Amino acid sequence: MTEDQLDAARQLARQLRVDSIRCSTQAESGHPTSSMSAADLMAVLLLRHLRYDWDRPDLPTNDHVVFSKGHASPLLYAMFRAVGVVTEEELLKTYRQLGGRLQGHPTPVLPWVDVATGSLGQGLPDAVGIAIAGKYLDKLPFHVWVLCGDSEMSEGSMWEALDKGGYYGLGNLTAIVDVNRLGQRGPTELQWDMDRYAARVEAFGCRPIVIDGHDPGAIDRALTEAGGDGDRPAVVLARTLKGKGVAEVEDKEGWHGKPFPPDLAERAIAELGGTSDILIATRLPEPGRPAGSNGSAKDGDAQVTLPTWERGEKVATRRAYGDTLAALAARGDVVALDGEVGNSTYAEEVKKAHPERFFEMFIAEQQLVAAAVGLAARGYTPFASTFAAFFSRAYDFVRMAGISQVDIRLVGSHAGVEIGADGPSQMALEDLAAMRAVHGSVVLYPSDATSTAQLVRLAADTPGIVYLRTTRGAYRVLYAADEPFPIGGAKVLRAGDRDAVALIGAGVTLHECLAAADDLDDEGVRTRVIDLYSVKPVDREALVDACNVTGGRLVVVEDHYPQGGMGAAVMEALAAAPVPPPRVAHLAVQGLPTSGTTTELLDAAGISARHIVDAARKLLAG
Amino acid sequence: MTEDQLDAARQLARQLRVDSIRCSTQAESGHPTSSMSAADLMAVLLLRHLRYDWDRPDLPTNDHVVFSKGHASPLLYAMFRAVGVVTEEELLKTYRQLGGRLQGHPTPVLPWVDVATGSLGQGLPDAVGIAIAGKYLDKLPFHVWVLCGDSEMSEGSMWEALDKGGYYGLGNLTAIVDVNRLGQRGPTELQWDMDRYAARVEAFGCRPIVIDGHDPGAIDRALTEAGGDGDRPAVVLARTLKGKGVAEVEDKEGWHGKPFPPDLAERAIAELGGTSDILIATRLPEPGRPAGSNGSAKDGDAQVTLPTWERGEKVATRRAYGDTLAALAARGDVVALDGEVGNSTYAEEVKKAHPERFFEMFIAEQQLVAAAVGLAARGYTPFASTFAAFFSRAYDFVRMAGISQVDIRLVGSHAGVEIGADGPSQMALEDLAAMRAVHGSVVLYPSDATSTAQLVRLAADTPGIVYLRTTRGAYRVLYAADEPFPIGGAKVLRAGDRDAVALIGAGVTLHECLAAADDLDDEGVRTRVIDLYSVKPVDREALVDACNVTGGRLVVVEDHYPQGGMGAAVMEALAAAPVPPPRVAHLAVQGLPTSGTTTELLDAAGISARHIVDAARKLLAG
Repeated sequence: MTEDQLDAARQLARQLRVDSIRCSTQAESGHPTSSMSAADLMAVLLLRHLRYDWDRPDLPTNDHVVFSKGHASPLLYAMFRAVGVVTEEELLKTYRQLGGRLQGHPTPVLPWVDVATGSLGQGLPDAVGIAIAGKYLDKLPFHVWVLCGDSEMSEGSMWEALDKGGYYGLGNLTAIVDVNRLGQRGPTELQWDMDRYAARVEAFGCRPIVIDGHDPGAIDRALTEAGGDGDRPAVVLARTLKGKGVAEVEDKEGWHGKPFPPDLAERAIAELGGTSDILIATRLPEPGRPAGSNGSAKDGDAQVTLPTWERGEKVATRRAYGDTLAALAARGDVVALDGEVGNSTYAEEVKKAHPERFFEMFIAEQQLVAAAVGLAARGYTPFASTFAAFFSRAYDFVRMAGISQVDIRLVGSHAGVEIGADGPSQMALEDLAAMRAVHGSVVLYPSDATSTAQLVRLAADTPGIVYLRTTRGAYRVLYAADEPFPIGGAKVLRAGDRDAVALIGAGVTLHECLAAADDLDDEGVRTRVIDLYSVKPVDREALVDACNVTGGRLVVVEDHYPQGGMGAAVMEALAAAPVPPPRVAHLAVQGLPTSGTTTELLDAAGISARHIVDAARKLLAG
Repeated sequence: MTEDQLDAARQLARQLRVDSIRCSTQAESGHPTSSMSAADLMAVLLLRHLRYDWDRPDLPTNDHVVFSKGHASPLLYAMFRAVGVVTEEELLKTYRQLGGRLQGHPTPVLPWVDVATGSLGQGLPDAVGIAIAGKYLDKLPFHVWVLCGDSEMSEGSMWEALDKGGYYGLGNLTAIVDVNRLGQRGPTELQWDMDRYAARVEAFGCRPIVIDGHDPGAIDRALTEAGGDGDRPAVVLARTLKGKGVAEVEDKEGWHGKPFPPDLAERAIAELGGTSDILIATRLPEPGRPAGSNGSAKDGDAQVTLPTWERGEKVATRRAYGDTLAALAARGDVVALDGEVGNSTYAEEVKKAHPERFFEMFIAEQQLVAAAVGLAARGYTPFASTFAAFFSRAYDFVRMAGISQVDIRLVGSHAGVEIGADGPSQMALEDLAAMRAVHGSVVLYPSDATSTAQLVRLAADTPGIVYLRTTRGAYRVLYAADEPFPIGGAKVLRAGDRDAVALIGAGVTLHECLAAADDLDDEGVRTRVIDLYSVKPVDREALVDACNVTGGRLVVVEDHYPQGGMGAAVMEALAAAPVPPPRVAHLAVQGLPTSGTTTELLDAAGISARHIVDAARKLLAG
């Protein structure tokens, strides 16, 4: 860099610092010192490396900037001001205010933000997904730049991300770690042990580049090296000072997440040389078009022929998932990811049919979900699968995906006590509750192969976090191949105008409900059976109808703990509905399950046909 | 080792393999090949290193064996047979059977098992907690031996564990990694790249020792080195063959999690030299007593004086938590852990008062919860705290803690939209649903300082996974200092025999309910107000009373998404209760929150006093 260029970088960094201070002081809230440490890094990135057309944030060739340290939002928004997409007025008047888009932590409400951050240790894993899209699907030379905090390097998910970044040879990914030595409550674990950081990065398959994070020349050389044609991610380890540039706070404890009081802000801005209105132009991306079928064009949709099954045939819904997804992957936007259990979830069928759109994430469920988020941010249609129980490992990532408002599909196999001998560690028994509570989620739980196929196909075009629960064992196909299964619907499998009781199940318990209905019919009890395949949104109308006909007598049966699952979904839906008040007999898994056979465990849990018959009888008697 | 000793190790290893095959073939389920790879490692451990009194599993001086690769349960149970605590009959007849204690994956139903495993990447983090107890609290020389799989080294949590093991200088911890190269569906990510594993271990602050995992002499030297007085954990990286000892399956794909068919089992057992009944005696631990006050003796309980507050004073419940826990930590069994936010959760008060019983886990929430699990397994009374939202990062660990049936307390601060400007990434809005669904959980949500203090004290002696949700802002103290708050209770703050409607809240929404009740009273509407501080178990009686008096008119208000939280808790409790059927107006957070002030956000979410008044009016009108 020439002296002029160095000076321009210093000037821009000063403005970024000043603006970070101004907006947070104005908001009386925010993280100025965490922004100031990284200002030089971002100034050089903006001036000399980032390729981005700010008028066209959806341009597929644009680079990506992810603030994994989302609390440095003042810096990010100051950068947006410096490139001219956010005005000084918006920055100063709306930061952290209700109705503004410059929220406390960045979200994709802003068109230049790919993913919501703020739960540390997630931006880099998400960026791995974006970089995978760039290298393997888009086949575009965009670069993914991620600003990381040093505190978040304690999160295991960061190492899952670097590991996968190395494994997939993501030379298009650069993590810039702002090693400012101070966390929220005091020194970080490794403080300024740059050698230790570098050794970890190297061991995890990435390229460490250690620099002084306040030396524009060194930053420029590092980013040049990082942005080159590497065969693995670069990790720029930048030694910095928290609060850099303002002596009163520089490298001092007690200033995390604290806006400067107005008097300090005034002194600080003066010390930094005052306010300025530098407006810069970043480099534009080279022209190009993605090779992959992302975005709205669902190339290949016409070629999708879903598998079909005969009614009565015994098929596991997990098997139907794999077969369906392999068929659906004729569409170029559909991508499958799995957590080293593709022969159990049957995601391996996609690998066989379309190896170029299958990504193995090994046993790293956080990265599994994060990669899906990143692929979705690039417009692809990811399906991520593992055992349903193990999505609990990535629950914070699912939560943040809800805040990102990305469209991802999570398919969890081996749900409930139904799995049998493996025991409770492998049984998802709280997933319906957890997934229902996620913002913008859709929760599906098909009972047969036909409904699985239809729902998987719908899931591909359903917005939000779609969670689909599959079952280990093979059960009867209940529906003809052309039966539709709209999201938010339910199937009334048996019904009459004089039904005395309704049995409501999904997955394995629907089959138990059907068996129970046979028994009840034999006793002369007219029984309605409802397949509640859409747990969220739930079919309120079908439930209201059932209440109207049965006088509110419902038996809800689920292979899940009693809290927050299908029972709660039914009750919440009917909470204030103008129907005969429901009297719900709720059968769910009681106690801690053990090993055993499926039949034994369903019975021990209190959710087998005989328990359903008993519950129905009691409702009728009471 | 002498030739005789080497031979004894080989013979024992053969028996462990044979028994692993026998029990899984008998059960028609299980993981024999994953057991066979580690048989030599465990044989040498049992014969020459492990110090354990099998008749007294509760002896505080015993070493600990944790199978982080829980699917190698056949090997663990074969070891139990070899030391004489499990009979051949139990092994062969009960493995993976209903009613047996030899479940598919190990759980503490067995007295020699500390923690449930089977969700990979958790045994080692749990063991860090056990080793912290040994080094810092018990001050006993027991050693913690952890058998890890190579596949699970992809989990970020394993690196959180090694990082913290190094940070806390846990020379009493040895991880033995069975690098058998094959995962469930094919080769692992690093296969036999022992150098890469060693570099990672070294960089994460631990001592790598690379060996041939089938050479008893090498194993013995490694375990000797590992078991010595190191100042950091040792990680024995053992190169092994999956299915070792049986040519038909050795190092072959397609044999994960598959029992041998009877004919192959027969050939395999013959190849291994047939069955045997070797019974061995392990070394006994040195005598000793724990320095810490673990177990049933709650030393110092008499010295606990809870802080008190005046009614009307404004105090944040998170502040009350910290002050109370600092007082409670006069008890020697109470230990606090935090995820680098102790100045926000106020766990730092314990650090100030009792630094010897405060452990900083930095930003590694999985390890935070795992360490609590390990401490609980050693009889301590851990309280782990972070932002409520960030416990979602450790949800799988909480789930497994439920299966371990350990007693831990998780305290989440900054719940709901109440937190204001930081935005949705920092708001726990699904925690009540997720935590309620965990087996054996207790979910508490106090509204004022007094109830917080009482509940924190009770939590220390409440079994199971106790989750307590605190609030960021300061609100009025509602109760006198001597008010009792039993788990499973509720407080009826305002009540009369002719109440027309009941408002039910907890935390910040209780204060909104009180404000709404004032308004409704002004309109002449007799209003009951219920503090539902115990969300699970919930006070069914108080709810039934409210239904009886109000004709079932309930307004439930929660700072949480609508699914699975307090509303569901109320509805589930009343599902089949013989009361006037509840008509629940359920106010919960609608839509995705943004930044804003607390007042703005409570209102925007639809859970502020005016919304409550409206909902009550509608209930009364309808």
